[in-house]
Order: sequence, then C-alpha cells, then structure tokens
Amino acid sequence: MTNPVLIEVLRGAIVESAHRGAVAVFDADGKSVLEIGDTSRPVFPRSAVKAIQALPLVESGAADAYGFGNRELALACASHSGEPAHAELARAMLAKAGLDGNALECGTHWPSNHDAEITLARAGGTPNALHNNCSGKHSGFLCTCVHAGIAHQGYVKAGHALQEMVRDAMQSVTGARHGADERATDGCSIPTYAVPLKSFALGFARMATARGFGPERAKAAKRLFSACMAEPFFVAGTGRADVALMEAAPGRIFAKGGAEGAYCAAVPELGLGISLKCDDGAGRAGEAMVAAILAKLLRSDEALAAKLSDLANAPIESRVGAKVGALRPTAALS
Amino acid sequence: MTNPVLIEVLRGAIVESAHRGAVAVFDADGKSVLEIGDTSRPVFPRSAVKAIQALPLVESGAADAYGFGNRELALACASHSGEPAHAELARAMLAKAGLDGNALECGTHWPSNHDAEITLARAGGTPNALHNNCSGKHSGFLCTCVHAGIAHQGYVKAGHALQEMVRDAMQSVTGARHGADERATDGCSIPTYAVPLKSFALGFARMATARGFGPERAKAAKRLFSACMAEPFFVAGTGRADVALMEAAPGRIFAKGGAEGAYCAAVPELGLGISLKCDDGAGRAGEAMVAAILAKLLRSDEALAAKLSDLANAPIESRVGAKVGALRPTAALS
Repeated sequence: MTNPVLIEVLRGAIVESAHRGAVAVFDADGKSVLEIGDTSRPVFPRSAVKAIQALPLVESGAADAYGFGNRELALACASHSGEPAHAELARAMLAKAGLDGNALECGTHWPSNHDAEITLARAGGTPNALHNNCSGKHSGFLCTCVHAGIAHQGYVKAGHALQEMVRDAMQSVTGARHGADERATDGCSIPTYAVPLKSFALGFARMATARGFGPERAKAAKRLFSACMAEPFFVAGTGRADVALMEAAPGRIFAKGGAEGAYCAAVPELGLGISLKCDDGAGRAGEAMVAAILAKLLRSDEALAAKLSDLANAPIESRVGAKVGALRPTAALS
Repeated sequence: MTNPVLIEVLRGAIVESAHRGAVAVFDADGKSVLEIGDTSRPVFPRSAVKAIQALPLVESGAADAYGFGNRELALACASHSGEPAHAELARAMLAKAGLDGNALECGTHWPSNHDAEITLARAGGTPNALHNNCSGKHSGFLCTCVHAGIAHQGYVKAGHALQEMVRDAMQSVTGARHGADERATDGCSIPTYAVPLKSFALGFARMATARGFGPERAKAAKRLFSACMAEPFFVAGTGRADVALMEAAPGRIFAKGGAEGAYCAAVPELGLGISLKCDDGAGRAGEAMVAAILAKLLRSDEALAAKLSDLANAPIESRVGAKVGALRPTAALS
C-alpha cells in the first residue's frame, strides 16, 4: 500500500515537496486509536526508542548505584546536540563508573548544535566521542555493564550481554520479535531492529502507563519518562523539536525523534502511545507529523493545540530571514 | 498521478526509506526520449537552472568586459561550498565591476564545506555574503547590472530589470511561461518559477546543442557549459555530487543540482537534456537519480556507466565509518 502525503512543503502558494508517511496511535491494551497508512510494515525506529533501551540502566540498579537523577536519565534517552552541558554530563556519568570517553564505541562527530560546533572550533578544539549525539545512551550502556560486572568491550555488538538486555526490553515492551532477520546497524554501531509501527505505539503506551508491567519495570519506565519530560534539553538540545514539543505541555507530552523521520511519543493523560515514520526519512516531516498528531489528540486544550499546530506549520525562510514558505499538514492528519 | 519510487535507502538488507520522483529526458527538438512519473506538474528548479540564469552575463557583454574565464563563468552557474577559492573568486568578480561583498543581496551563511567552516571559525572569522553558496551567481548578476548601466540595488526582486533579463532567458530557453502565478522566492531572495520538468529537459538539451538558438545565445550557452565542465570545482566544491558527475567524464556530462531534490543535466554528445525532481526534496535522492539516469543513457561506455552507477549506489556509513547501508536505484531507473 502507498502511504498518504501527510506533510506538504509550500514555497509561496505552490507545493514544492511532499512527504508521505504512516502513523500509529495505540493504547496500552493494544487497542488501535488511530492508524494512517501502513502500520504493519517493519520500520527502524532508530533513536526514537532510546527510552526503552534505557530500561536496563534503571532496572539493573546502575542508575541508583551511581546516583543518577533526571538529567542523567534524560541524557541516557537522548540524541543530544553536543552542547557543552551534554558532553560534560556524559563525561560525569562515565566517571561514576570509573570510565572516560575512550570507552565509548559510538564514534565521533562534531556537535550538531551550530553554536557549539563553532565555539569548539574557535577554542582550537576537536570533537570526541562525548560530543556524539548518542554519548548519553552509550554512557548509560557502559554504566550498566560496569555495575552488572559485564566486560564492556564490544558492548555495541549484537550478542553482547548488554545488547541482549536491551533487546529483551525492546521485545517485551513492544511485543514484537527482534530477531536477526529484523536487524541492521545504527549510526552509533548498536543493533537496530525493524518492527511494525503499531508495536512501537503499543510499547510507548505501556511506557506511559506502566500497564501490564511488573513493579520494577513500572517504576523504571515512570522514572525515565518523568526524567525526559522534566529535562527536555538533555534529551535533545537548544532549538530542537523534542524540546519544543515537551516544553509545550510540561509533564503531559513525551516525544523522541529518531533518524530517517522516525518518531515515538506518548500522552500519558490519555494513556496513548504514538509512533510514526516519514517514508523518505526527512526529519522535518517527522517533526511536523508528530506535532500535528499531538495537536489532534490534545485538541480539547485549545491553547496547547494551537501551539502544537504552529510547530507542525514550521516556516521556510530565505537566507535573509524572510518567510518564503512553510510546512503544512494535509487533511489526512487533521 | 503518484510518482514511482526511484531510490531506496537500505539499512542492512531492509529498505529503511524510499524516495519517489519524476524524470524527463528530451532532445532539443522537443522529442521525449524518456519520461518517468509526472513530468507535466510544475516544479521549482531552484539552483539547477543557474546556467540558464547566467546567459545575460555573457550575452550582455559583461563577461567579456570584465575578462571572465572558465572559473568565473563556472562560479556564476554555481551553488558553491563556500571554500576559500570560491569566496575569493566571487570577491574578485565583484571588484572588476567596482563592487564588493556589501552589494550582494543573497544573505549570509557559513560555508557548507565543513573543513572551510571549521577553518574560518578557528581563524576567528565569521561568514559574509561571499560565502553564500549563491554568491557567484549574484556576482554575475551585479556585474551584468553595472556593465549594462542598470542600478543594481534591489536586483533580487521580481520586476527589477536584471530579473526580467533572467526571466526572459528562462522563458525563451525552456519555452515555458514564467509568470507571477508560477513565482515564489528562492533561498537567496531571487524569484524562482515552477514549470514542468519536460520544459527544463528541453531547455537543457538546447543549452547543450544550441539548436534553435541565434548565434549570440549559441555562443553564450556553449561558453557557460564548457566553463562548468572544465571547472566543476567552481560549480560546487570538494566532495560534491556535481563535481563527481562532471569529473566522471570530462566534457561529456553537464550536471547541476538545486535545493529540494531538483537536478538538471545534459549529455551534449547525445543531444539530450535531463531534468528531475525528488518528490520529497531530498538532495541525496536527486543525486542518486541523476547518476542512475546518466548511467542508463551512457551505458554503451561500460566503464563510465559503472562509475556513474557507483555514484547512484552511495554507501550509508556509521559514525565509525563502517558501511551499514546504501542507496539503491529501483527498476524504474534501470
């Protein structure tokens, strides 16, 4: 099946580009609340599922042992922008486990935040693995290994005890098989598994409600979600969509984007989990899609819905800052 | 009509994302050689038509008056990466007309070439309008104004004498109406007009063959095309697709990308013009599409076709440089 166009990109009054996609909204009992497009086709969630991947950090007792609060837990669920506060917190997390940035196996790239990148360059610096957007997640992985007495070398590889813990959490929360046939390698070298959007929507409804979880998992899920919603800057960074979405309604929206237009979100007060994927992998469209869906689900709060709708209709600007176009959700999302 | 998927993005063995698009290949008599998808829908060509937009620079006599050679003409057709050689040449072009970077109305952004950006920051510098990827085109515009005795202030605006010259060239070469209804504003503040892909394909076949052109236009088109093919670095920059495509067969391929997945190209020896647009605006897909189409048109040269095919199947790498996926043209392109 061909997914519908969900976001149009206008230049002036003309549609310049268009983004197709699929969206699943489920409750924690597995009831479908809204499905657009093909929600059964397997998609890679990429970084959108980091909150689930962080469950072992809390459930193993590592987060408590190292005294991690909201910021550290948010960073463990983050695709951060490599700003100084992000890199420094990742360093501090590793130090608690007696490690440093050299233990990270995620690779190195310049901060995605442009000001942070320029500041680092101006200071004569070069990036290290702490600046990698996944360094918080990887620091959480490493802390889990050290606390559990697992040799951390090769912790990114499929089959390593840490990745098996992560895979077990993913399978158990989403109810979907995460086998070798579904597996590929993420940008930060860990396995990523393609499973249906509907499974991720169910998983995030469970994360938001703890429905069907045992007491330890319920506590861990609540702690991770609360941490992300309390410290959205540490989940992403300055000017990022995840932050704008979570700050639009503090404590009421969880949102986490992944590469290639994947998004997972939840509205705890409604008991709903959301997952979506832009077919072509565009981040701008994934962001607009999740904002539009959240506006729809939360339409009874008119002020909030208007704020979310603004995020879904992001402007396109020229290099002198004039508005020359905008993103626009289609009727399929309204 | 729904355009077909032309490029798939694989992660491991699984299709992670997919790009739809349309392609037109025409000869200079207006004969359709190949059409995929909807080639009648108006699309913004953006920077892909800079070679046509540069015709007035040559036809007005400005290029000769200021002694511009291949590099200056290539830069006038460029979306360059803001590397030092690009910014310096734009400065030198403006100086010939007694102007400097302050006359540019394209706006400012950091160099898109990462090394150039970091080097500029390390030196304590900040970008100016000369680093704007369109500064060569705008320098050509300004030189045309000064040489023709037209007041240059506001040269980016629809209705300014310079933009009317550019619009006349676009209409005459493509045969398509460029009216107010088709108009929006490009990222560098000049007008951009949405017209059918088939018109751009015809226009680039004419640019490549001069068929149907008067002697002055024929000479100008040949000079601009020769300049771009002789100096591809000045059309784009280090590591860019336009450069790789034109260097794959020196003098035999013209290729110029635009924003939002637009591409125009030509194969002079076959007398063919090519235009295409990735529906969702992804540059990676526009680049892979044009490489695949060129490989198809030039398949009798097996070594060249293999080189172009490699460009169409670009790898996706993790942050440690491991190949974790690749782009793959679909059967619709082969």
